Amino acid sequence: MSSQFSGVIPPVVTPRHADGSIDTASLQNLTRHLLDGGVSGLFVLGSSAEVPYMTNAERDLVVSTIAEANSAAGDKAVPLIVGANEQTTNRVIEEAKRVIDLGADAIVVTSMYYAIGNAEETETHFRSIHAAVSKPIFAYDVPVRTHFKLPTDLLVRLGREGVIAGVKDSSGDDVSFRQLLLAARDIDNFDIFTGHEVVVDGALLGGAQGVVPGLGNVDPRGYRNLVDAAAASDWAKAAAEQDRLADLFEIVYAPNGRVSGGAAGLGAFKTALQVMGVIESNTMSAPMPALNEDETKAIRGILERNGLV
Amino acid sequence: MSSQFSGVIPPVVTPRHADGSIDTASLQNLTRHLLDGGVSGLFVLGSSAEVPYMTNAERDLVVSTIAEANSAAGDKAVPLIVGANEQTTNRVIEEAKRVIDLGADAIVVTSMYYAIGNAEETETHFRSIHAAVSKPIFAYDVPVRTHFKLPTDLLVRLGREGVIAGVKDSSGDDVSFRQLLLAARDIDNFDIFTGHEVVVDGALLGGAQGVVPGLGNVDPRGYRNLVDAAAASDWAKAAAEQDRLADLFEIVYAPNGRVSGGAAGLGAFKTALQVMGVIESNTMSAPMPALNEDETKAIRGILERNGLV
Amino acid sequence: MSSQFSGVIPPVVTPRHADGSIDTASLQNLTRHLLDGGVSGLFVLGSSAEVPYMTNAERDLVVSTIAEANSAAGDKAVPLIVGANEQTTNRVIEEAKRVIDLGADAIVVTSMYYAIGNAEETETHFRSIHAAVSKPIFAYDVPVRTHFKLPTDLLVRLGREGVIAGVKDSSGDDVSFRQLLLAARDIDNFDIFTGHEVVVDGALLGGAQGVVPGLGNVDPRGYRNLVDAAAASDWAKAAAEQDRLADLFEIVYAPNGRVSGGAAGLGAFKTALQVMGVIESNTMSAPMPALNEDETKAIRGILERNGLV
Amino acid sequence: MSSQFSGVIPPVVTPRHADGSIDTASLQNLTRHLLDGGVSGLFVLGSSAEVPYMTNAERDLVVSTIAEANSAAGDKAVPLIVGANEQTTNRVIEEAKRVIDLGADAIVVTSMYYAIGNAEETETHFRSIHAAVSKPIFAYDVPVRTHFKLPTDLLVRLGREGVIAGVKDSSGDDVSFRQLLLAARDIDNFDIFTGHEVVVDGALLGGAQGVVPGLGNVDPRGYRNLVDAAAASDWAKAAAEQDRLADLFEIVYAPNGRVSGGAAGLGAFKTALQVMGVIESNTMSAPMPALNEDETKAIRGILERNGLV
Repeated sequence: MSSQFSGVIPPVVTPRHADGSIDTASLQNLTRHLLDGGVSGLFVLGSSAEVPYMTNAERDLVVSTIAEANSAAGDKAVPLIVGANEQTTNRVIEEAKRVIDLGADAIVVTSMYYAIGNAEETETHFRSIHAAVSKPIFAYDVPVRTHFKLPTDLLVRLGREGVIAGVKDSSGDDVSFRQLLLAARDIDNFDIFTGHEVVVDGALLGGAQGVVPGLGNVDPRGYRNLVDAAAASDWAKAAAEQDRLADLFEIVYAPNGRVSGGAAGLGAFKTALQVMGVIESNTMSAPMPALNEDETKAIRGILERNGLV
Repeated sequence: MSSQFSGVIPPVVTPRHADGSIDTASLQNLTRHLLDGGVSGLFVLGSSAEVPYMTNAERDLVVSTIAEANSAAGDKAVPLIVGANEQTTNRVIEEAKRVIDLGADAIVVTSMYYAIGNAEETETHFRSIHAAVSKPIFAYDVPVRTHFKLPTDLLVRLGREGVIAGVKDSSGDDVSFRQLLLAARDIDNFDIFTGHEVVVDGALLGGAQGVVPGLGNVDPRGYRNLVDAAAASDWAKAAAEQDRLADLFEIVYAPNGRVSGGAAGLGAFKTALQVMGVIESNTMSAPMPALNEDETKAIRGILERNGLV
Repeated sequence: MSSQFSGVIPPVVTPRHADGSIDTASLQNLTRHLLDGGVSGLFVLGSSAEVPYMTNAERDLVVSTIAEANSAAGDKAVPLIVGANEQTTNRVIEEAKRVIDLGADAIVVTSMYYAIGNAEETETHFRSIHAAVSKPIFAYDVPVRTHFKLPTDLLVRLGREGVIAGVKDSSGDDVSFRQLLLAARDIDNFDIFTGHEVVVDGALLGGAQGVVPGLGNVDPRGYRNLVDAAAASDWAKAAAEQDRLADLFEIVYAPNGRVSGGAAGLGAFKTALQVMGVIESNTMSAPMPALNEDETKAIRGILERNGLV
Repeated sequence: MSSQFSGVIPPVVTPRHADGSIDTASLQNLTRHLLDGGVSGLFVLGSSAEVPYMTNAERDLVVSTIAEANSAAGDKAVPLIVGANEQTTNRVIEEAKRVIDLGADAIVVTSMYYAIGNAEETETHFRSIHAAVSKPIFAYDVPVRTHFKLPTDLLVRLGREGVIAGVKDSSGDDVSFRQLLLAARDIDNFDIFTGHEVVVDGALLGGAQGVVPGLGNVDPRGYRNLVDAAAASDWAKAAAEQDRLADLFEIVYAPNGRVSGGAAGLGAFKTALQVMGVIESNTMSAPMPALNEDETKAIRGILERNGLV
């Protein structure tokens, strides 16, 4: 089967200055850091970008900043897959059109949220968006946020008919993920990505096309090495790299219990990037607090034992 | 204790033409129907308005249409309490400013959604919005949509400090609702409303200031009678009226299992209003289907046995 | 409609000696305390009795101890409604037969748990138990423990056919509770009890036959007064008594966060009874810890302001 | 690190005659089928055995029947790992002692259920059981039934101190599973099994000691081949065998929606075994219905395309 998208496509975090405004210089630097790390695409305006916390003006600024930095990379430039993160169908369509105008090569769409839908409405949702926009659509399965698990049979049907071009799976349900991989194996240009940082070797062994790792902001090269080892069928090497990355992933547990689940993981990625000198500040979007000095120290320790600082 | 808001404040549904566009004539008619029914306020852009499904342009059109119809009612005009329904703090503030410019007398704000917060971030969320807007804020507790229950102690603290002016409770947790009523009894101008149509007598007996009933679109006078009976301490009459309204509420079970939970309840209210001649069509916001003929017939039967057609 | 069971039927807690063994003397004393408080029945082996933590030998000892103390009360003796708390149908039947032999006048049965059932299996479950045992069956709706909400239409159907004699509702869903009350209004000898301590006035206003309050261990007379006021249609008095009991209910928040939800509420009831001198020790069933001195002090304060010590 | 338990340890299903009684002849036949299939242990009285639906007398009969058939297999005999499935600590201890007397080589214990505990009580739970019984304990993480996820740090601590000898993971949380594998890598004689049939290759790649597959009742040899391929580092072969077993696993979706989740999966395993002639009847424990002819036909088709009939 041919594939449009594959490999490592990290969800780019959104650096902010200490005053809370978007830090475009850091964002450009981060984009170069990722391209240098060997990523094959950039997932813009994902959950890891704190997209729910951004105003529309901020969302536009982030897309255009990354698009510019990506273009400036010349040969290293990669496709931009951009989240159109809104509550329901017509709002997603408006958002999708805006980000496509700003340079998106594909869009990423969740099921509805706050709204209480079902499988039939979700199918209409994806079909309506497909009818209204000109770029490939990835379905983003993230029930921890939407509180609706995308049914495997729906994803396969939409993939087979060309309504969606792939899936980003952050469902945490490895059983349905494997069954999706099996059921979709014969669909051309239907690419399935796991969003879970620590089970990538198993996902690739099962046939996934790639990974969208938040942790890939911190160590894009590590994920590239993992994917390359898998592509070469060197599974022992892939598993060893995965184990190392799972150890690095411990940074998200540094802020143990002090902050919300949202602020902990994303805060850890941003703090690590700050420690590594890639971005200026670990400031979070309001109302999330930034990680503090003790937490930063713990993260530095984990980065050091993984050779990243 | 004095009270700013009390009585029956129905969440106004949003009529659409068969082509899906907002039906402003029906919306004006519905507004008059509610004012004639003796309501003491209008909750605009609530969940019952299908607010998550509306584009910003549609939201603006709905607020200005209701505001105009309300003004035109002269002496019968009531305060407009308008939902500022967005994912996170800064997005809520933008939305709130827009609806205040369009005539909102107070705004209604949920905890964050899609975003994964905690109690501390939620407190910051409400405090930041209060600091940014000029009108009273109602906290809207609707965990079935936000997946976060607003803690009683947080609501009481925010009420005591004047950050919020009241609570609209759709939590389905009658135990915490009673404890909120007790704990907030001595706070001046802190008004607590239940959003549950069939337990209003008990809520008023416990000290609630009023009710925000979706079913109040269909039978505003019934809720007014219930509230008046309670105010006169005629609890037997209040309970009898509540029992009748609980029977009328059976319209939401007419579309048993065929459509989503969202489309069933709201579809039933719109279908009843169509049958009663208040609005032109029972068309729902995309991607929700409208109720069909069989379901409409069942609803007509329930309306008939309650003397509404 | 006639009624078999009504009024205040508290779920009797299980006193233990400091060494963990059942304290039958305290249990006899508690039984007398409840009968003196004007209760109209005793719910034995309920969740408040810590029934899941008791071995079968302990369960038998508790039933026979209460049965004996109840019989010894002569004219004050009340019906014993006993929980047959087991995972599935055949295990419930074995348990039910045992407790009926020990003196149960009715049994209380939940839906299955640990097992993953559905509505059809749950219907078979209740029908099979009814066919196997000779005493009336109360359905106990406690989804926080069973993770299955008993559907209203199922309860009404089983009630109408005489399979169940009533419902103890601890669902926390006041909307479905009101609809159950309405739908079951014309069923003879079908008695509906709320298990929620702080919303009893509203439940009675809506037509409930009574209450099964854990807090009734501590203040049976308060609940009797509430029920009597409601029976006399003195709703202002009922609400005032309910408000006082809701304040007393604050004892369950004394162990704020230190212990599990299970240990907090039950620990508070036992600690209050120890402070009041009704039972000897506030020892909990393993592995739950007892409340400590600070928590006991806080509880004593709440008891004092309510005139119970 | 050394290992006490590893490989394929299927949870043996419980055959019943059409009248509902335990079919010991079929159970003996099934035991031989599994031993012939190359399993390295038998998990007795697991969820797949319908243990929650069995009376104590039935549980005893099943353990002794399997123990006898296992002994009779001579050199092929394997260790028996037996579930002590009860609500709370002291009830588990009673159950554990009984099954150890009947031949259990190790016991399997979940967190409490119906009871509402927390991490501290769960730690006490496992420590108390360890203190009371003489055989190794496996912690069984099955939050879909217990509604409590066993925390990784607790499992590691209990493993390091020798309180538990391993984990059977049916949590569906592959992220925490990988982190458990990593964190426990240096603990001697601490064996981690996945309970998920379709992700075994990835689990073994991550370092798991084995698998407890319900589907292993139907195709023990397939799982043995998968485990052998992994042990030989032939990951392509392991993944191919896993894909075939994932296709076979489709039998659990044959009863699509008609029966409960519990009855569907277990009913599919029993129906497959009946079609294959290993057991006499696909009768389920009350109140679960058996799969019907249409469902049996669908299952036969899947067995045929996998070469099992």
